[in-house]
Amino acid sequence: MTKRKHEENGNGTEENGNNGSKKNKTDSLEGGEGSKAAKQLHLTAFMRPVSLHTGAWRYPGAYPDANFNLTHLKSFIQKLEAAKFDAFFMADHLAVLNMPVEALKRSHTVTSFEPFTLLSALSQVTERIGLAATASTTYDEPYHIARRFASLDHISGGRAAWNIVTTGNPESAKNFGQDEHMQHSDRYKRAREFYDVVTGLWDSFADDAFVRDQKSGTYLDPEKMHVLNHKGDELSVRGPLNIARPVQGWPVIVQAGQSDPGRQLAAETAECVFCSPKNLDAAKELYADIKGRAEAAGRDRSSLKILPAAMIIVGDTVEDAQSKRLKVDSLVHYDSAISSLSIALGTDASEFDPDGQLPTNLPETNASKTSRAGVIKLAETEKLTVRQLASRYGGYAGLCLLGTPESIADTMEEWLKEGACDGFTCVMPFLPQGLDDVTQRLVPELQRRGLFRNDYEGTTLREHLGLARPKNQFFE
Amino acid sequence: MTKRKHEENGNGTEENGNNGSKKNKTDSLEGGEGSKAAKQLHLTAFMRPVSLHTGAWRYPGAYPDANFNLTHLKSFIQKLEAAKFDAFFMADHLAVLNMPVEALKRSHTVTSFEPFTLLSALSQVTERIGLAATASTTYDEPYHIARRFASLDHISGGRAAWNIVTTGNPESAKNFGQDEHMQHSDRYKRAREFYDVVTGLWDSFADDAFVRDQKSGTYLDPEKMHVLNHKGDELSVRGPLNIARPVQGWPVIVQAGQSDPGRQLAAETAECVFCSPKNLDAAKELYADIKGRAEAAGRDRSSLKILPAAMIIVGDTVEDAQSKRLKVDSLVHYDSAISSLSIALGTDASEFDPDGQLPTNLPETNASKTSRAGVIKLAETEKLTVRQLASRYGGYAGLCLLGTPESIADTMEEWLKEGACDGFTCVMPFLPQGLDDVTQRLVPELQRRGLFRNDYEGTTLREHLGLARPKNQFFE
Repeated sequence: MTKRKHEENGNGTEENGNNGSKKNKTDSLEGGEGSKAAKQLHLTAFMRPVSLHTGAWRYPGAYPDANFNLTHLKSFIQKLEAAKFDAFFMADHLAVLNMPVEALKRSHTVTSFEPFTLLSALSQVTERIGLAATASTTYDEPYHIARRFASLDHISGGRAAWNIVTTGNPESAKNFGQDEHMQHSDRYKRAREFYDVVTGLWDSFADDAFVRDQKSGTYLDPEKMHVLNHKGDELSVRGPLNIARPVQGWPVIVQAGQSDPGRQLAAETAECVFCSPKNLDAAKELYADIKGRAEAAGRDRSSLKILPAAMIIVGDTVEDAQSKRLKVDSLVHYDSAISSLSIALGTDASEFDPDGQLPTNLPETNASKTSRAGVIKLAETEKLTVRQLASRYGGYAGLCLLGTPESIADTMEEWLKEGACDGFTCVMPFLPQGLDDVTQRLVPELQRRGLFRNDYEGTTLREHLGLARPKNQFFE
Repeated sequence: MTKRKHEENGNGTEENGNNGSKKNKTDSLEGGEGSKAAKQLHLTAFMRPVSLHTGAWRYPGAYPDANFNLTHLKSFIQKLEAAKFDAFFMADHLAVLNMPVEALKRSHTVTSFEPFTLLSALSQVTERIGLAATASTTYDEPYHIARRFASLDHISGGRAAWNIVTTGNPESAKNFGQDEHMQHSDRYKRAREFYDVVTGLWDSFADDAFVRDQKSGTYLDPEKMHVLNHKGDELSVRGPLNIARPVQGWPVIVQAGQSDPGRQLAAETAECVFCSPKNLDAAKELYADIKGRAEAAGRDRSSLKILPAAMIIVGDTVEDAQSKRLKVDSLVHYDSAISSLSIALGTDASEFDPDGQLPTNLPETNASKTSRAGVIKLAETEKLTVRQLASRYGGYAGLCLLGTPESIADTMEEWLKEGACDGFTCVMPFLPQGLDDVTQRLVPELQRRGLFRNDYEGTTLREHLGLARPKNQFFE
């Protein structure tokens, strides 16, 4: 996260709204005024209705009922579209996560709308913004998945994206007739084959298969229909899909894997990678690795966009942003926070003095050493008490870009130019204020620098992301 | 179908629109003016985007591209809502139906939007009309089904209905990893258990489980969350569902079975039965049987509405309606029609003289004797040529109510009063004209007689249908 401090931004009102055709650029930008060659950021919003941060529902002005109040979701997506975001990205789970009852009772993240029904509804109150849904290859059928994304793509005029997940949460297995969660490597093997089947089904019909000649009575040309007849190790699916080829050819493929098989799957299949590096160096390593694997797999490096996830907290000053963060973290109830910290440490932390420092004599445990070392390092770096540390782990422990619109824009620009990203997957700390801060204060600053679009140039998500429409595998 | 002839209806313009608060009633109606005691019809529209009738896409004024053109679907549902229909009911398949290539190339019924994405989108352009989706218990998971219907119910403000199907089409199996279709009795056994799981999951949370007390930090009361822990012969699902209890408690349950296990499943579980009796006597038998079975299962007879499917063709005169039917039937291409007739007869009919009568010396075959006898009877009764007979079977062979608005209203009134139905599942012969004829000519006539609502009285589908909100099984 940025530690650089910039002059105060005033009340930010001058930056509200969008700059229209006015294109300011900084000296550091390549290309001339309005040049398409200048590399710009892509921005998506990774959303849960109330926020991913578990303290957010208690933040001043929050909508605690947003999980089942569509009005709020409509306003969020409309604000993101007004700010020209590439996509609205709905996080998802296939279970009420198993957690201690003291944590469960504090959690607003447990229940909400289902992604396909939500995004289809939101497609009717928006016109341009992309609609990304999470869907599992472990607990669903490729025919259903292919069909729903194709349908969402038709309904939205080419704005659908599929975030392929293998469902890491072992609790989900129990909701789908299985006592044991499928092994990690088996999940990725199935995911790879699942992707082949789904994309094969999307190509069931040539774009000109439906002739609809009322006079002769020919509705479709059977020569332009492909029967997949897939029989693999994991899946057997005949096809064809009972839906015309999607507007985008294929909905955009999103992947979030960071493990070795996750990176490989992303390099082979993803067009957008959603990842969680902790800092610039880690992001550069991940970026170079995945782009390199993609190239090795015969793909063009630009055919895959890497968008690290970052919680974004905008303040009038860096200190103001920091105090907002402490505020939202403090709203994570201690009963809930301490259990998250205990999991991260692999040790029961409830016996520690909440307002003291983390004990130095932590017992060795079987928990992940990386996770434990991360907690210890964070406690030292930011000099956090046990309570603050617990709130961080109970709230949102990932990358956070925190500061003024200018300082955050500096960081984003640095990451883009250093080859650490093609943009960001933005996590809003609290809603609606945190989203307004991003769309009304940060985005105008990025636009002023020529780092973000002033308006959509195309109508489909592929066009927003600069991705080509895939050719049909079976037809010219 | 009605054979009674009434005086001409003129151009029908006087009946356009809705009668507002004016409530005319006929002498035959029970109850006083505006009495709620008078039994009224329920009307749903059973839809495919272009029509269920396979000749409809060639009818004058038809929208052959409606399968993937949402604009048309929006106008259809908005017209049905303006006419105060109970629900818009989306038919569905899980495969491109296996048919001879000569039939396939003529078919507009093969491909279209997927129901959940479509209905969620349509929920945003309507306010009151119910939204019924078909979903299979054979090729999907109860956790997914429970979740999507609950989400659609939240998104639409309590307008969702689940048409439970066991998927009779054996081609679907091949799209879901199975070579053989599940046996009929096994499908119904699984469906019954599937229903228990889905309704159990809907009851995961008490209505007041989400307290969302920002001050104390209590979001939900874990005592008001139920973990289903279902372990049955066919399904094992832990729960809880990750969504609040639906607005309607449970979305309305719809069933279409007519076989013995189908009737029993409907009697035990359905709140709306979609059936296909051929005539008044068959409808009365089915009505009495299913209501009797429901009573035997401990249910109130009024807790289940029986709505026979009927294609409705409105004309200025009965002859005019008949000529519309001949017209739309004639648009079924002979290559497609003759294969449907061959299937119904169990004999290759392509060798017969298209313009002659059905031969009297039809060979005995292994095909269903009932089906074959039905064809022969229809040919005799309506004196149809082989071509006309083929068009009927290739187009829409179910019950058809055909005539003037008055004569069709007479038939509907008779069916209602004779205990043959609680309303109708309306099939539109061609769109948009056939739908306009129903909503702008037939519905006003029904309203004039006090047989159909002049306006919605409630906001949820359960309220339109007069169905109680189910109690939560696990909480007061």
